[in-house]
Amino acid sequence: MNLVVQKYGGSSVGDAEKIRNVARHVVATREAGKDVCVVVSAMGHTTDELVTLAEQVSPAPQPRELDMLLTAGERISMALLAMAIHDLGHSAVSFTGSQAGIITTTDHGRAKIKEVRADRLREALQQGKIVIVAGFQGVSDESYDVTTLGRGGSDTTAVALAAALDAEVCEIYTDVAGVFTADPRIVPTARVLHAVSYEEMLEMAASGARVLMARSVEYARNYGVLVRVASSFDLSAPGTFVREEDERMEKAIISGVTYDTTEAKITVHGVADRPGIAGRLFETIAEAGINLDMIVQNVSRAGHTDISFTVPREDIDAVRKALEPLMRELDADGIEADADVAKVSLIGAGMKSHPGVAAGMFRALAEAGVNIEMISTSTIRITCVVREIDVARAVQAIHDHFALPDEAVVREQHPRSV
Amino acid sequence: MNLVVQKYGGSSVGDAEKIRNVARHVVATREAGKDVCVVVSAMGHTTDELVTLAEQVSPAPQPRELDMLLTAGERISMALLAMAIHDLGHSAVSFTGSQAGIITTTDHGRAKIKEVRADRLREALQQGKIVIVAGFQGVSDESYDVTTLGRGGSDTTAVALAAALDAEVCEIYTDVAGVFTADPRIVPTARVLHAVSYEEMLEMAASGARVLMARSVEYARNYGVLVRVASSFDLSAPGTFVREEDERMEKAIISGVTYDTTEAKITVHGVADRPGIAGRLFETIAEAGINLDMIVQNVSRAGHTDISFTVPREDIDAVRKALEPLMRELDADGIEADADVAKVSLIGAGMKSHPGVAAGMFRALAEAGVNIEMISTSTIRITCVVREIDVARAVQAIHDHFALPDEAVVREQHPRSV
Repeated sequence: MNLVVQKYGGSSVGDAEKIRNVARHVVATREAGKDVCVVVSAMGHTTDELVTLAEQVSPAPQPRELDMLLTAGERISMALLAMAIHDLGHSAVSFTGSQAGIITTTDHGRAKIKEVRADRLREALQQGKIVIVAGFQGVSDESYDVTTLGRGGSDTTAVALAAALDAEVCEIYTDVAGVFTADPRIVPTARVLHAVSYEEMLEMAASGARVLMARSVEYARNYGVLVRVASSFDLSAPGTFVREEDERMEKAIISGVTYDTTEAKITVHGVADRPGIAGRLFETIAEAGINLDMIVQNVSRAGHTDISFTVPREDIDAVRKALEPLMRELDADGIEADADVAKVSLIGAGMKSHPGVAAGMFRALAEAGVNIEMISTSTIRITCVVREIDVARAVQAIHDHFALPDEAVVREQHPRSV
Repeated sequence: MNLVVQKYGGSSVGDAEKIRNVARHVVATREAGKDVCVVVSAMGHTTDELVTLAEQVSPAPQPRELDMLLTAGERISMALLAMAIHDLGHSAVSFTGSQAGIITTTDHGRAKIKEVRADRLREALQQGKIVIVAGFQGVSDESYDVTTLGRGGSDTTAVALAAALDAEVCEIYTDVAGVFTADPRIVPTARVLHAVSYEEMLEMAASGARVLMARSVEYARNYGVLVRVASSFDLSAPGTFVREEDERMEKAIISGVTYDTTEAKITVHGVADRPGIAGRLFETIAEAGINLDMIVQNVSRAGHTDISFTVPREDIDAVRKALEPLMRELDADGIEADADVAKVSLIGAGMKSHPGVAAGMFRALAEAGVNIEMISTSTIRITCVVREIDVARAVQAIHDHFALPDEAVVREQHPRSV
């Protein structure tokens, strides 16, 4: 079976006319000889509106009931899409996450997919039907309650179904043309990449690119699902493939520059430099349920050192609350929080075998007059913390410095035949 | 278990504040020592809005998908109500029709409840939780698809749950104060009845009273469910009990006057008066899927007779189309359709043992100068077809003539202890 999974986000199904457009594209794919499984998000801002309603009835809505509420959103869009496809003369049938066999943990609001029992979908596909599945939702096999997968969950639904149904590709239609070398609102010369590896996409997602959530990319990597990210407003454009790294990718040293202005830098000054201190500090933060990102500790002077890390800005108060009782035990001087920072990252699978990339990035920032406050690296990523007001200049300077390969070059390296 | 089923209609849960009001009432019932099972409709005009969306994507929406779409409405209201109750410090859990075990036929848009498998509800109630169930919806045990029960379906859900859970009463909260002796917009002196029998309520529903749909009353009668209809805007008012007829009801000869202006009168003139003709005529109409109401045939003159009946006004063309090919076979002179008519009905279980009620009704109409065009009766109902412009005068005249018992008298006959 030549099956394609297509996922359409909320902006792609924002009103009746857009739903009819999506229906036409789905039908065109079907008429090109493919079986089609469509995953839809809730229409436009439906999910946000439902969250607002929930907050109006209860300041702290019960997670189980919030999931029950939010799953109404995809139910509406999927039923409408099925009707629109039917209206074009094709047979379509919609399934909730539960009906589609998306079995999850019971963690309401951030459930994880444990298993996909896609028998009902396979049966419908074998009957020649176009199958439509609600994104973002599943059902717990412990409580039998409906669950949601959290932000970006519909992408994960699509990738999980592509894996379960052995699809040839999982197409993610969104409101951007693909994965860019940098945010085109900041860097007008930024280009759409033809392909990136799962690892690069993961680093991009973790460092601020919003096009795909990290979880869906991880899922795709684990199951070897070929993902294509493309624009739902320009369906003829090729978009970006997210796939296994292979030898043809080697020449592209750098894939993109990303940034993130949602985090704050926390510094704990003058911490005693002895074994167990960092462990104590970060255990305390973990117990408070705060997601840490970068951690930097420098060499110590006079038996004391500074430890810095970044956290989501909304967690600044929680970090202070968690750490203040610890200051004496850590022998620390104080906690400093700075919300006016930004992370700028350079990502590329090729940098593994190309020393000097980091130096190039630092030089580019220096020439642009941007001061670096923290540095952290992985094998395929370099991240600098800079002042937030410098972020656009920093991204532009790095992009220019590496003269990110133009699309023609990329295409030659990665022929469309993938 | 002292269980109360409470059903709240769309206007009762129209916004966040109204949902919080309903939550307070539910909690008050719980705190009075009752187990509570709540059935909710979709908020305000949600269902109509979803139907409009469906019509925007497809002129003839698929019934399966329309049901999938519409069931999102109750999902939203029930989850919000559960959150609001939780916010008041009580434990509540919401269930879709499918989760609540409402097993139906597969007739999308007008499914019938076949069975209620309420194990999950019983379990939640035993855990001390307030249970909330989506009205209007169920699941087919043949196709495993989600179904809806049609207009007024939430009332049927409530009654079916009251029967399955052996509730002491099924309270239907609506936007009117109960069952009136006549429409209070027409008869300012109309009063709320303290109690009516299932049979009277069925006749009232069939003859134009909108307060309860006939199907839910039939269900209540079949399972002996005590129903109380009351206002969700004045929760202290007693409302109306719908129940088994008993000896205490005997004195109330007349319960109410109803009217219906949604039907048209069709007359087939000069039909041959021989066996099989009426059968042929009404078979043809039934095959066209048209719901007949009153049928009147008078004695014949010269081997021919006139047959009249009423149908929903929107079916006039369909009736003509169905019958015109038959005119020759029936030896008939022609078909006449008259949309400017109204049915006025007088209902009362006591009229069985009180001859003269019909005569009193006809006299009242004559004195008011209202001409009677058709008459039909059951053991507890008399219906006259009159001109539509006479309907208010007719209802008022009949109500006055029978001086319908005031609430004090009714109360004495049917003490609150029922």
